[in-house]
Amino acid sequence: METTEQTIRIQYDKMKSEFSRILLSIGFSEQNAEKCAEIFTMNSLEGVNSHGINRFQRFVNNTLDGYVKPEAVPSLVHRVGSIEQWNGNLGPGPLNATFAAERAMELAIENGIGMVTLANTNHWMRGGTYGWQAAKKGFVIICWTNTCPNMPAWGATDPRIGNNPFVIGIPYLEEAIVLDFAMSQYSYGKMESLNNEGSKLPYPGGFNKQGEMTTEPGEILESWRVMPAGYWKGAGMSLLLDILATILSGGLATHQIRTCSSEYSVSQVFIAINLKSLINFPAINNSILQIIEDLHKSTPENPSVKIRYPGENILQIRNENLKNGIPVNTAIWGKILNFSPPTPLKGG
Amino acid sequence: METTEQTIRIQYDKMKSEFSRILLSIGFSEQNAEKCAEIFTMNSLEGVNSHGINRFQRFVNNTLDGYVKPEAVPSLVHRVGSIEQWNGNLGPGPLNATFAAERAMELAIENGIGMVTLANTNHWMRGGTYGWQAAKKGFVIICWTNTCPNMPAWGATDPRIGNNPFVIGIPYLEEAIVLDFAMSQYSYGKMESLNNEGSKLPYPGGFNKQGEMTTEPGEILESWRVMPAGYWKGAGMSLLLDILATILSGGLATHQIRTCSSEYSVSQVFIAINLKSLINFPAINNSILQIIEDLHKSTPENPSVKIRYPGENILQIRNENLKNGIPVNTAIWGKILNFSPPTPLKGG
Repeated sequence: METTEQTIRIQYDKMKSEFSRILLSIGFSEQNAEKCAEIFTMNSLEGVNSHGINRFQRFVNNTLDGYVKPEAVPSLVHRVGSIEQWNGNLGPGPLNATFAAERAMELAIENGIGMVTLANTNHWMRGGTYGWQAAKKGFVIICWTNTCPNMPAWGATDPRIGNNPFVIGIPYLEEAIVLDFAMSQYSYGKMESLNNEGSKLPYPGGFNKQGEMTTEPGEILESWRVMPAGYWKGAGMSLLLDILATILSGGLATHQIRTCSSEYSVSQVFIAINLKSLINFPAINNSILQIIEDLHKSTPENPSVKIRYPGENILQIRNENLKNGIPVNTAIWGKILNFSPPTPLKGG
Repeated sequence: METTEQTIRIQYDKMKSEFSRILLSIGFSEQNAEKCAEIFTMNSLEGVNSHGINRFQRFVNNTLDGYVKPEAVPSLVHRVGSIEQWNGNLGPGPLNATFAAERAMELAIENGIGMVTLANTNHWMRGGTYGWQAAKKGFVIICWTNTCPNMPAWGATDPRIGNNPFVIGIPYLEEAIVLDFAMSQYSYGKMESLNNEGSKLPYPGGFNKQGEMTTEPGEILESWRVMPAGYWKGAGMSLLLDILATILSGGLATHQIRTCSSEYSVSQVFIAINLKSLINFPAINNSILQIIEDLHKSTPENPSVKIRYPGENILQIRNENLKNGIPVNTAIWGKILNFSPPTPLKGG
């Protein structure tokens, strides 16, 4: 990422300690502040500012408004075989999700495969976090979350389904192959940034108020008619991911998660598979290597663009940002530095 | 579906008995012929001729060519906890997949969740078959298959990834909600029929040889540059589904499944979840009802088009075709009626 006049580079440790300071000031324990700060900073370090520093203020506001309970932890509702259903008790989304992914891996150690569901939890920020978490420990993970209603069904004009991000993480060498995608073609965050820059979307990302497909992000932000990825396919997958998250966790469905401005109490599913339990475990790394090798042999349309697997560029971004600092918007960083909690704490 | 001069309606029992007769004549036992005939006929009955009658001749040819072994059955390679890895021994794809889905449900009865993988199996025809199979017995199923390389990676021009169909089945009332979609925006079958009719695709379905997005099916059939659903999203999901199918089954990856003209020895994964094991089981039906009720409240862009869940129209198609017969192409039906096996059998 190029730095511009509006961008400065902040070192990982500096960013993390500022996040930690703020979280401590709004009711997080030292341990929880540290863990949350690490996840937000890591997301920015790996190039996902939309669920790192750019989302931090909203996480703080949701905590101050009482939607995120800084010290709540999940409680076990039901265990059967290789499934556990947990209540997230409105704890911090990233901590609840980290916990659930970890429990799913523990169940997978026992039975090869394990599923953990979370009702009543909060936004997990970047789904890829849990893909990397599991994959780096040698597990396959498949996980997803529902969201507030932020996308119309295919053929409809009013937002009634969620963009319900879906994640698959697979161990690869010492790193991971991680697919992390929402069911909408573009995120609202992406469309907002392009709109601010005055840029168009590379492909149609939704419909304008006249019902025409458009590459103008401003028109879509106005109509709320974001395009499901793959048209009816992403819309269908969104609906089924919502049904599954709801019925497997016993939590709220998208239509019950009231508003997108204060989205809370979402439902999530984490399925982990222990690759070590498989008979072909010794051959797995080589098998993936061959698939990636074949992918890399693809003939690119544009000869200067390398064909990559999902997550392939993360390592390079991570290393560059570790060395040179994380590029962040100057104004957003200024607000982080100047943050002081309201007195008395609203949510206290 | 409207019947035209080229279309006649055939009764379910008649179609099934013709399929059965042909399969018996090429080496299937009575039991296997019956089971396969039922699946092919059911697919046509439910409106999916592309994986019913229109695909039957190719299934017969693949059997005669020795790619499909009519009497081979899966053998257990490895069992650990709630996972079983099976070798499909190149048996008939629909029978192997039915068996695997059934075993996954049996594992789910024991542990809440179960996973069965199949290496060395064959095309399962319509993925939705296994979605309905599991859902009608009260199980959630998530399953997918890899395929021959039939789609370029995003940004590439040569087909190196598969369209890897992915299925989610969820019980609903006495029926099911079934999502069954390939990672390409349109199937080759769909593009061929539209091309034969001289029709365009409703949305761009690929790139022509000049690298331009096109709605002309003929141009895409020529270039083999079919569009991944959701652009980079469907392409990424295709890659990860292939990696998972390969490493979880120990079978072949897309790049190892040599040609699309004689695709065989594919890899599949079936994950079943026993809803009865969940603490909220009694509330699940109502929970899905509410989600569907909310979906149905969507404001359609076109007031005459009802917003539906995946699989919602199947019941109506099934009932109509049961009553009036299944609409099939006259020429294809003629070939079925006139089929007689080569002597001696090629694959015998």
